[in-house]
Amino acid sequence: MKNNNIIEPKILKGTRDFLPEEMAQRNFVQQKIVSVFERFGYDSIDTPAIEYAETLLGKYGDEGSKQLYRFKDNGGRDVALRFDQTVPFARVVATNYSNLPMPFKRYQISKVWRADKPAKGRYREFTQCDIDVIGTKNLVSETEIAKAVYSVFKNLGFNKFIIKINSRRLINSILDNLGVEQTKQVSVMRILDKLNKIGKEGVTKEMEEICDKKIVSNILDTMLLNGSNQNKLDKLKKYDIQEVNDFLYLCSQAQLPETFLEFDPSLARGLDYYTGIIYEVYIQDTEIGAVCAGGRYDNLCSLFSKEEFSGVGVAFGFDRIVLAMETLKLLNNVGLTSEVLVTYFDKESLASSLKIWDELQTAGINTEIYFEPAKLQKQFAYANKKQIKFVVICGPDEIKQNMITIKNMKTGKQKTIPQSQLSNYFNGYTNL
Amino acid sequence: MKNNNIIEPKILKGTRDFLPEEMAQRNFVQQKIVSVFERFGYDSIDTPAIEYAETLLGKYGDEGSKQLYRFKDNGGRDVALRFDQTVPFARVVATNYSNLPMPFKRYQISKVWRADKPAKGRYREFTQCDIDVIGTKNLVSETEIAKAVYSVFKNLGFNKFIIKINSRRLINSILDNLGVEQTKQVSVMRILDKLNKIGKEGVTKEMEEICDKKIVSNILDTMLLNGSNQNKLDKLKKYDIQEVNDFLYLCSQAQLPETFLEFDPSLARGLDYYTGIIYEVYIQDTEIGAVCAGGRYDNLCSLFSKEEFSGVGVAFGFDRIVLAMETLKLLNNVGLTSEVLVTYFDKESLASSLKIWDELQTAGINTEIYFEPAKLQKQFAYANKKQIKFVVICGPDEIKQNMITIKNMKTGKQKTIPQSQLSNYFNGYTNL
Repeated sequence: MKNNNIIEPKILKGTRDFLPEEMAQRNFVQQKIVSVFERFGYDSIDTPAIEYAETLLGKYGDEGSKQLYRFKDNGGRDVALRFDQTVPFARVVATNYSNLPMPFKRYQISKVWRADKPAKGRYREFTQCDIDVIGTKNLVSETEIAKAVYSVFKNLGFNKFIIKINSRRLINSILDNLGVEQTKQVSVMRILDKLNKIGKEGVTKEMEEICDKKIVSNILDTMLLNGSNQNKLDKLKKYDIQEVNDFLYLCSQAQLPETFLEFDPSLARGLDYYTGIIYEVYIQDTEIGAVCAGGRYDNLCSLFSKEEFSGVGVAFGFDRIVLAMETLKLLNNVGLTSEVLVTYFDKESLASSLKIWDELQTAGINTEIYFEPAKLQKQFAYANKKQIKFVVICGPDEIKQNMITIKNMKTGKQKTIPQSQLSNYFNGYTNL
Repeated sequence: MKNNNIIEPKILKGTRDFLPEEMAQRNFVQQKIVSVFERFGYDSIDTPAIEYAETLLGKYGDEGSKQLYRFKDNGGRDVALRFDQTVPFARVVATNYSNLPMPFKRYQISKVWRADKPAKGRYREFTQCDIDVIGTKNLVSETEIAKAVYSVFKNLGFNKFIIKINSRRLINSILDNLGVEQTKQVSVMRILDKLNKIGKEGVTKEMEEICDKKIVSNILDTMLLNGSNQNKLDKLKKYDIQEVNDFLYLCSQAQLPETFLEFDPSLARGLDYYTGIIYEVYIQDTEIGAVCAGGRYDNLCSLFSKEEFSGVGVAFGFDRIVLAMETLKLLNNVGLTSEVLVTYFDKESLASSLKIWDELQTAGINTEIYFEPAKLQKQFAYANKKQIKFVVICGPDEIKQNMITIKNMKTGKQKTIPQSQLSNYFNGYTNL
């Protein structure tokens, strides 16, 4: 059946296909991240992509609603696609807390959807990657999150990155002290959060719309500090620095090198629900924004339960991390996984090719057999396109003599060896 | 902010949360499957969960439309959630074939959504797991798919399973020969496909509605055969058995044990688009239906392109495979990944605990630190709930003497050793 109505093979803006090379890189990055999460004892959970809109809207109200993919299902139910992993996590904890280990540590890596305007690096379908500890207020959990974040970026091969930290408690204490009314503090923090985007001047201008000039100048003088973490703490002694102080001490005891940890009193984070330590991670030598961010929150589960659970967690920006690794050429050696191609010479020699293919596979080597008795050049081209390192040539001449020719696709060199030595030959290549 | 309006934490029927134990099993199964796919040189791709409805509807027409999660996005576009991985794959090939290695081999493991009636083992959101070879008509690709299927089930630990195979070409040849008009052949195959569900009597009854009694009886006498694959081939000599014959020969040359491969001339598969060899896999000693199925198709890409690509592939029923493995107790040893818990005794000893935690992590051991100076019993209970094998107790007495106590949570036995021997102690456990 020839189809005359050809459908244009297009996809929606803000969504992506991932082809093999890119997927190999993404799988590599994900495995590196997961191995650290597991080293820290985080267990994986998964939640449905599609939930009742009411559930997903809980936290964000109208602002979230605009970005939600929301629709009626065939049964007329008001449903939506997952917007983030935090609200579903709160729902899972509220439903299952009596059966979960407490404190509960989980990671989740999955797709989320936002009906946002697509732009460079901003997608409508993208991957989120979260860790959270819920059920304890002890600063050891903030320390663990910081150490896990450090270990993730180290394990990915980054050497220059900064984990910026601050405390919402400290910000509140500074703002109280400088005479900013409690009702205005959330707005002040939201403006502070734009510092990277609009600079000191922009922040000053916006803040002066809601606070006295003098107060704004005091806020910025107090918060925009240079020097070591200890210097900054010394300068902020009259405010509530206990939490930051304790946290930095615990991080140093946990052997987190201080050079990776920058106390930044102006770090604010945009979201309302943070209550304690907050984090943002930046990769140096890239123009990419924060690649990881989060903090302590105290009331998320109260959407779904009368029980109170305090938690702390961060979200890793998976797509940004992949982009940063590409920029810094940390993915150059990540390739496809096929290692050996066995040629298909002709019908008569096919049985031998199939046997050799089985033998190499049984030896644990990722081995393909070519599908057709095509010209060798075509089979070599296939091997090159798939980044295959060795081609095993078994033509009629070789087979007659129980020999086999191995072509190294990188060097172009060929070697003929007895068939019986084949598996051993490849076992010599520890990193095939 | 205490929230007074508590949202009932419910999820939609036919969707599921996966908690850590279940996720550990699913991750284990997925890794086992992927490792075989990669051994055979299949590369991973990913496509958007959300696409233009027109694209996704291409193949299924009205039947698919009922089961599609279809809606208007915020821009008024007619979109839908991925229904299977085959149509998106055809779209990807049509768009990218000039840049892809050809033949192109890919695997995809992702969620799909169907607005189906939820039932035991039937979900609205579930995982599909496909391999396909596209761009060759050579039977070596059918052979490779069969070998990959065999290797997947072997690698998952199954010892008793049957890969049933047949050929659409053979069915057509039998039906032609027995006088079934071409226009009725698809309907006859659809009825044949119900053999497992409604039995020989049911099939006879349904078939007699469209064919003569005598023809129906001839069809069933011809197709319902016992004996070895060779016996069956011998009995069907006058029909077009070339393809099945060649395929079985290639499978034997590729060392696929014949006991796992059953030629079943009555195997038909429901979908219209198959044109050659078809497969269905059953696990013995379970009541679960086919756990894997597929076949040769010739025109899928014609929906999106004037180029013709013949392909062959199978879909593994991920959820059914997990269920079969549970039934056969093949997942009993799969657990959470945390290995060691370091206790938090009191504030004074915390620094030591943090250092020990870092030391074990640096040695590559999945190690947690408890978050609070809780009673040891509580920390042990946490370890048990997380299936942690060893607890490292560093109380004030131990620390003073540079000693450490290790409790084996399985045996309950404790041992006190010098702190300096700690990493070495665990390195002794190769399978911690």
